[in-house]
Amino acid sequence: MNQTPQIRHALSTKRADDFAQWYQEVISEAEMAEESGVRGCMVIKPWGYGIWERIQRRMDDRIKAAGVQNCYFPLFIPLSYFAKEADHVEGFAKEMAVVTHHRLIAGENGGLVPDPEAKLEEPLIVRPTSETVIGAAMARWVQSWRDLPLLTNQWANVVRWEMRTRMFLRTSEFLWQEGHTAHADRDDAMEETLRALEMYRDFAETELAMPVFAGEKPENERFPGAVATYSIEAMMQDGKALQAGTSHYLGTGFAKAAGIQYQDKEGTQQYAHTTSWGTSTRMIGGLIMTHGDDDGLRVPPIVAPYQIVVLPMLRDGPEDEALLAYCQDLTKALGQLSAFGEPVRVLLDKRPGKATQKRWAWVKKGVPIMLEIGGRDAAGGQVSMLRRDRIWNAAAKANFVALAKDDFLASAVAELEEFQAGLFAEAKDRRDANVSTVENMEALTAFFAQDKRYPGWAEVLWSRPTGAALESVVQKLKALKLTIRNTPLDGQAVSGSCIFTGEPAVERIYVARSY
Amino acid sequence: MNQTPQIRHALSTKRADDFAQWYQEVISEAEMAEESGVRGCMVIKPWGYGIWERIQRRMDDRIKAAGVQNCYFPLFIPLSYFAKEADHVEGFAKEMAVVTHHRLIAGENGGLVPDPEAKLEEPLIVRPTSETVIGAAMARWVQSWRDLPLLTNQWANVVRWEMRTRMFLRTSEFLWQEGHTAHADRDDAMEETLRALEMYRDFAETELAMPVFAGEKPENERFPGAVATYSIEAMMQDGKALQAGTSHYLGTGFAKAAGIQYQDKEGTQQYAHTTSWGTSTRMIGGLIMTHGDDDGLRVPPIVAPYQIVVLPMLRDGPEDEALLAYCQDLTKALGQLSAFGEPVRVLLDKRPGKATQKRWAWVKKGVPIMLEIGGRDAAGGQVSMLRRDRIWNAAAKANFVALAKDDFLASAVAELEEFQAGLFAEAKDRRDANVSTVENMEALTAFFAQDKRYPGWAEVLWSRPTGAALESVVQKLKALKLTIRNTPLDGQAVSGSCIFTGEPAVERIYVARSY
Repeated sequence: MNQTPQIRHALSTKRADDFAQWYQEVISEAEMAEESGVRGCMVIKPWGYGIWERIQRRMDDRIKAAGVQNCYFPLFIPLSYFAKEADHVEGFAKEMAVVTHHRLIAGENGGLVPDPEAKLEEPLIVRPTSETVIGAAMARWVQSWRDLPLLTNQWANVVRWEMRTRMFLRTSEFLWQEGHTAHADRDDAMEETLRALEMYRDFAETELAMPVFAGEKPENERFPGAVATYSIEAMMQDGKALQAGTSHYLGTGFAKAAGIQYQDKEGTQQYAHTTSWGTSTRMIGGLIMTHGDDDGLRVPPIVAPYQIVVLPMLRDGPEDEALLAYCQDLTKALGQLSAFGEPVRVLLDKRPGKATQKRWAWVKKGVPIMLEIGGRDAAGGQVSMLRRDRIWNAAAKANFVALAKDDFLASAVAELEEFQAGLFAEAKDRRDANVSTVENMEALTAFFAQDKRYPGWAEVLWSRPTGAALESVVQKLKALKLTIRNTPLDGQAVSGSCIFTGEPAVERIYVARSY
Repeated sequence: MNQTPQIRHALSTKRADDFAQWYQEVISEAEMAEESGVRGCMVIKPWGYGIWERIQRRMDDRIKAAGVQNCYFPLFIPLSYFAKEADHVEGFAKEMAVVTHHRLIAGENGGLVPDPEAKLEEPLIVRPTSETVIGAAMARWVQSWRDLPLLTNQWANVVRWEMRTRMFLRTSEFLWQEGHTAHADRDDAMEETLRALEMYRDFAETELAMPVFAGEKPENERFPGAVATYSIEAMMQDGKALQAGTSHYLGTGFAKAAGIQYQDKEGTQQYAHTTSWGTSTRMIGGLIMTHGDDDGLRVPPIVAPYQIVVLPMLRDGPEDEALLAYCQDLTKALGQLSAFGEPVRVLLDKRPGKATQKRWAWVKKGVPIMLEIGGRDAAGGQVSMLRRDRIWNAAAKANFVALAKDDFLASAVAELEEFQAGLFAEAKDRRDANVSTVENMEALTAFFAQDKRYPGWAEVLWSRPTGAALESVVQKLKALKLTIRNTPLDGQAVSGSCIFTGEPAVERIYVARSY
C-alpha cells in the first residue's frame, strides 16, 4: 500500500469547460439527488439528504440556543389569508400551487378527474412561505407586552411554481426552515433580524466552510412586504453569486394584515413588529459549487454524513476474517472520538465490489477521509489514508499516506479540523481574489465583458437611489446580466461618487451575475 | 417548603365525565396544539412539537440502525402515477387534495382566482402516502439482485382529506415517517415487514411507555393494495383502541404497477416484493390518552422536551441573586447527567409569574419532575421535588419531597427511569385488566352493552373468514360499533369455535371500539 494507487478520473465534465453541466454531473455521480418525474420536484437521495440532516441538526441547535421554539403550521393557506398583505400577494401570486378540489371521480374516458361536487369553496394555496398563516396564529397568541418577543421557527416544505428549475438551487418544492418572530418595537425586531443574519453568516462560514458577505439587499430585491431584507451572498467557483439565506424586517405590515396587537405597559394597543428569516436546501447547491472539484464533491466534515470511510480490501478468502476484525476495531475506535462537538461519523464499507470502484464512488461523494486497509496494513498495524482535499494537490495525485493505526487515531480529529479549515481558507482566498473595486460604469462594463470566464464580483460605490432612480440602475445592470447583491454592514465610511447616478456615494454594493 | 403546597386543579373536565372533552382540554391547557383556522389542519405548538421532535429523534435512530436510509420524495404525485395501482387508488381517491392550477389572477370582484390560463394539464395530488412516487424511483434504482434489499424512509407531511377531524388523531395534514423497501422475494419482504412492526412495538412500549398488541389486521382493514397489513394497537383510558403504527407487505402489486424489476442471479427478470410502514403524529394522541390524568398530561421522560424543570421562587428582591446562582448550578449539574442514553434535558424557568401558576402550567404539560427552589432551600442545599406521577397518588396530593441537593443529583436519573417504568406498568396493568375473553356473540353484545363506561376489549376466537363471510362479520360488529383490531402473532394454539361463524377457530382476535 505504499505505492500511489491509480484513481480513475470519472467525471466527464470539468468545471472550466461547462460549469452548469459539471454541477449536474456532481449531483448525479455523488448520488445526491435526481429528477423525480414530477415537474420541478427532485428526489433527494441518501447522500444529499444526509448532508441536509447534518445541516438541520446544527442549524436547529443554533436556533434553539437563541431561544426560538419550533412549531408546525399548516401546509395549506386559504386564499383570503394570503390576499391580506397587498405587496406580499403581488410578489407571490404568480407562482403558487392552487388546490381546488378534495376528491377524484372516474371521468368519461375511464380515468380519474377532480370531482366537480368536491370543489372547495375557497381555494387553498400550498404555502410558498408562511408569514400569513403564522401571523394568524400570532394574532391569537399575542395579547400583552409580556407575550413578546414571540420567537418561532418551523422546518417545512414549501412550493413556488418555477418555470426553470435546477436541482437544489431552484425547485418548485424545497425544504427549509423559516423563523417568524414578533416584537414590541422596531429596535427589538431589527435586532432579531440581524441576529438571524449573523447566525446564517456564521453557520455558512463555520459549518459549510463557505465564506459569505452579509448585507442589506437593495429596495428592488426586498421580500414582498418587507421593510428591509438582508442576505448572505456566497461566490460560486464560476464567479456567480448565490443568495444562501435571507432575514427580513417586516415592520408592522404583516401585523396589521393579521391583527397581531398587544397592550403595552401603558395599556395602549400597539401593532407588533415582525421578522422572518430562512435558509433552505439551496445551501447544498452552494456547498457543491463552493467545494466541488473535477473529481466530484468535497464535503466539509461538519456536515458530512460520514467523515471517515474504512474500506477493507477484501479478497473473498479466509484471510478476510482477520482483516475485517482489524477494520471493525478501527471503526469502533474512530467512532469513540469526538470532532466538532459530536461523535466522529465513520462507516465500515464492507459491501462487495472492486476496491478501486468503491474508492472512486467515495471520492465522487466527497467523504473527507478514506482509509483503505489491506491484509498487510492489518498485519502491520497500519492504515492507508487518502484525504479528499489532497487528491489533486501539488504534484502528487491521489496521495495515500501510510500511517501507524495509533498515530492516525491520535491525529484523526485534527485531520478533520484541518480539512474543514482548509476548505474555508481555499474558498475565502478565491472569493477575495475575485472581488474587484470598480470605479465607474465603463470599467464595470469592461470588467464583466473581459475575456475571463469567471470575472467574479465588482465592489462599487453608490448613492442608494430609490424608486425610479433605482429602477433605472437595475435596468442598466440587467442589460449587462448583472444584479446588485447586497450592501456590506461593516459601517465602513466611503468617499467618492455613485457610479450610476454621479451623486455622492453613501455605501458600497456588490454587483455580480447570480443564480 | 416542607408543608405540602396547594396545587390548583385547573382542568375543568375529568376523564370519567367526558373523555373526548378532557382530551381536547389537555391539548389546549398543555399548549400542545390548536385549531389553525385552516380546515382540518392544526398548529402544533412548542410543547407538542417538542414531543414530536423527541419521537423523531429516537425513531430515526432505530430506523438508521436497521440500515434504512432517509431520502426525500416529491409532495406532489401526478394523477397518472396514482392511478396505476387499482386497489390503491380505490382506497384513497375519495380523500385527496387536488392541485389544478399554478397561478392566481385578479377575479371579476377584485379578489384572486385561479388563472384559467394556468391550468395544469395533469392534476397533481398532494401525497396521501408515497408508494407510487417512491415506486417510480425504485424502478430507476433497482436493476439487479445486487441492488436489493433497497431500504428507504422519509419524514414528511401527508394529506388525507378528512370530514371529521380531531387533533393529533385525525387531521387532514399530518406528519409521519414512511418506510419503503424493495426485496428479492416474499420471505425477505415479510421479514422486513415484521421487523418494522417489532420496531414499532418496542418503540411504543419503550419510548412512549404505551403497551400495544402487535398483530395482523383482518382482510377488510388492509392498506389499499397490500397483501397483508400489520398494526400495533394500544388501549386508551376510555377503553377504545388506537392503531398507532402499521406495516404492510405489498407483494408484487406495486412493483408491477411501477415496474420495479431486477435480474436475479440466474439472469431472469423478476418483480421485486415491496413493503411500507409508517407511524405519525397520531402517536402523540395515543400518548395523551394513555398517560394523561385529571391534571393534564404526563409525558414519559424519554420523549419529554424537558425532563426536569427548575422553578426558583423569585421575590424580585436582592435575595434573588443567590437563589438564581444556586438554581443555575443545579441546572448545569443536572444537564451533565445522562438518562436513556442522552443528556438530561433540564430547563431553568426564571420567567416572571406567581410560583403556583408556573407550577400548575408545568403540571398540565406533564413535565416528569419539577424542582421548586426557595431561598431557604438554596441556603440549606436542598431541593423540593414534585414528581408528576405522584401528585394524586395515595392519599397525599401534590406530595413535594424535600431532598438534599446532592442526594437528588445522585438519584435524578433513577427517578426518571422509575417514572418511565411506572407509566408503562400502570398502562399495562390497566390494559391487561380490561381485556376479557368472550365466548360467544351473546356475551360479546352483553360485554359492550354493559353499564360500564369503558368496557375495554374482547378477545375472541374466530375462523378467519374471508370475502363475503368476513363482510358479514364486519357488518355484525359494525351494528355494535365495534371493529376487529388485530390477530396476535404469538402463534398460540387455539381450540374452540369461531364466535361469528361457528366453524373451528384458527386464531384469536381483539374486538373493540376504536379511534
